[in-house]
Amino acid sequence: IQELDLDIEQIEKNGYEHFMLKEIFEQTQSIKDTFRGRVVPASKEIFLGGINDVIPKLVEARRILIIGCGTSWHAGMVGEYLFEEFARVPVEVEYASEFRYRNPVIYKDDIVLAISQSGETADTLAAINLAKQAGATVIGICNVVGSSIPRNTDAGVYTHAGPEIGVASTKAFTAQVTVLTMMAMLVGYRKGTLSKEEYEKHIDELSCLPEKIQSILDKSEAIKELSAKYVDSTNALYLGRGYLFPVALEGALKLKEISYIHAEGYPAAEMKHGPIALIDEQMPVFVAATKDKSYEKIVSNIQEVKARKGHVIAIVTEGDTIIKGMADHVIEIPETLEALAPLLTVIPFQLISYYIAVLRGCNVDQPRNLAKSVTVE
Amino acid sequence: IQELDLDIEQIEKNGYEHFMLKEIFEQTQSIKDTFRGRVVPASKEIFLGGINDVIPKLVEARRILIIGCGTSWHAGMVGEYLFEEFARVPVEVEYASEFRYRNPVIYKDDIVLAISQSGETADTLAAINLAKQAGATVIGICNVVGSSIPRNTDAGVYTHAGPEIGVASTKAFTAQVTVLTMMAMLVGYRKGTLSKEEYEKHIDELSCLPEKIQSILDKSEAIKELSAKYVDSTNALYLGRGYLFPVALEGALKLKEISYIHAEGYPAAEMKHGPIALIDEQMPVFVAATKDKSYEKIVSNIQEVKARKGHVIAIVTEGDTIIKGMADHVIEIPETLEALAPLLTVIPFQLISYYIAVLRGCNVDQPRNLAKSVTVE
Repeated sequence: IQELDLDIEQIEKNGYEHFMLKEIFEQTQSIKDTFRGRVVPASKEIFLGGINDVIPKLVEARRILIIGCGTSWHAGMVGEYLFEEFARVPVEVEYASEFRYRNPVIYKDDIVLAISQSGETADTLAAINLAKQAGATVIGICNVVGSSIPRNTDAGVYTHAGPEIGVASTKAFTAQVTVLTMMAMLVGYRKGTLSKEEYEKHIDELSCLPEKIQSILDKSEAIKELSAKYVDSTNALYLGRGYLFPVALEGALKLKEISYIHAEGYPAAEMKHGPIALIDEQMPVFVAATKDKSYEKIVSNIQEVKARKGHVIAIVTEGDTIIKGMADHVIEIPETLEALAPLLTVIPFQLISYYIAVLRGCNVDQPRNLAKSVTVE
Repeated sequence: IQELDLDIEQIEKNGYEHFMLKEIFEQTQSIKDTFRGRVVPASKEIFLGGINDVIPKLVEARRILIIGCGTSWHAGMVGEYLFEEFARVPVEVEYASEFRYRNPVIYKDDIVLAISQSGETADTLAAINLAKQAGATVIGICNVVGSSIPRNTDAGVYTHAGPEIGVASTKAFTAQVTVLTMMAMLVGYRKGTLSKEEYEKHIDELSCLPEKIQSILDKSEAIKELSAKYVDSTNALYLGRGYLFPVALEGALKLKEISYIHAEGYPAAEMKHGPIALIDEQMPVFVAATKDKSYEKIVSNIQEVKARKGHVIAIVTEGDTIIKGMADHVIEIPETLEALAPLLTVIPFQLISYYIAVLRGCNVDQPRNLAKSVTVE
């Protein structure tokens, strides 16, 4: 008899050094799980059983409120861009904590989307109760099946990302964004604001994402090498525009959470209104700069950073030559549709945070001061 | 004949070492200028001639969009809280740059408030044009009379703060917030969502603010001494809740702009969702913590920071004993009504930024990389 020298945690980590790394790599599969049975490429359809009854309300909504905290709030910001583009409905994204304490204006015909991985976030739950009292329709987007938020909402869509153990959320974020993408597409299509052609094009592209995520994960060794150059940074900025502005916020939050480097995300155009004063040769600036309608603008933002001697690490579309010629480092990712770009651009940011934190000797799965779900106010 | 050894700049600085300090100290007067002839304490009335014709539209609005960049965006965030409380209308605050590039949803009955000190901010101008094309009513809140934004809007209110020379905006911010306060009060009163009693109470209190600002400015020596302790900081966090959340953002921006210290503002409750990981004995945490309905919550946020050995510098209401017992330093400011608190709490933050920057030898009136008005995209 030979004893196996393995503990449960090691088994659960499935050969990965940390849960966070395992969860980053699982995204190829977790995104598939999120749209399995919901996105049907053969018949070019999207089914979301959990919100079927409220789709007419979503189609007629004059306003959608999205509520969340931390990473879920960032997913909500992506949701704002998605719903405004596809369903042409104004969206307001709110910090649950600010929303609940300020006697918010909620109309009876408002739709409230509450996002929470755990489904137990205290501030989000309290915000839901406020919205329900005001007569709004509340839809949950949660990962943990049977948790408090799904039990307290009128309808909902589970993200089905599987258990997330690492305190810094990764696969839950991409699952949340995937659900928001499916919802916005479905509502836009039913409403007639998203054409059949665009709807089907996005359905096809959604099914290609797992493979494209895999191709980014395949570059993890190169990303690790690049990350090593910024291990001693004390600060960092993350920039993006449009759909990639919330990705910049999320990239900064990941680095902050697990490496304790003070990283901050900004919409790139706001740089000139203050943060550019911070830039010198010590400041790494991570830019989400894939080819989209803001491409020229982000190129000029990169030039501004370089003119102040900042280090630019840019995530670009495969084959990009312009930014390659000016950035200190580029990470190429596959081309995709603009609205789906957050699901790809966030992956290198997750990996960079992970590698920097590991090289700094931080406990990435249990960062100091943080809990996985914030069930206190 | 004796030649006077003075140049024009020195004369213009009126004995102050920098324009920024002069402009901080001018706020006692500039706020008076902002409400002169508009707030009439004797008859308990507010007159805003520039928007008189559009008040019925403001009263009926189902939604107000506020657009700005940098400090003006922060003033807009205060405006969100003001209009939601007084006029019970949902408000969305947008970065002008993000708004204009994302094909935003604008309804014909939307009211758009565009805020800009210079009236020339390129992104804000472009956003205004979009809103006008969509048929919305656009109202400008600008300082420079006859500038492009006032010339391109349907109505507007000048802030009358006088010329602002320092690149880091101070008196223009308090003037913007004063205008937004008057507007929200007037619209709320006309709409019947702000009672006569509350309306008059706020009018009386508005007239007391210059004196209260003066009493804060009188503490500038003590604030200077306190600031000296944080001259070598590399990072800082600024926290607030409700009305004081935008003040935290503005406090952080001031420090960032002129001292090049990486300061970041957060709604205090979001700490637990990430930023608290940054806190150690090196991290100064500036907290706007005057007595209001979030007071208990902010006290517990301060405890969390202290438990992680952060340095807490809190702005508190005169006579506060609870926070005094836990914070490293407190700055006491006069009591005021909750909705008017931003106009007082921001003053110590402006002074702290100024003194830290001067002690670091920074050029506070002309910080590196920044221009006074951002007239390029």
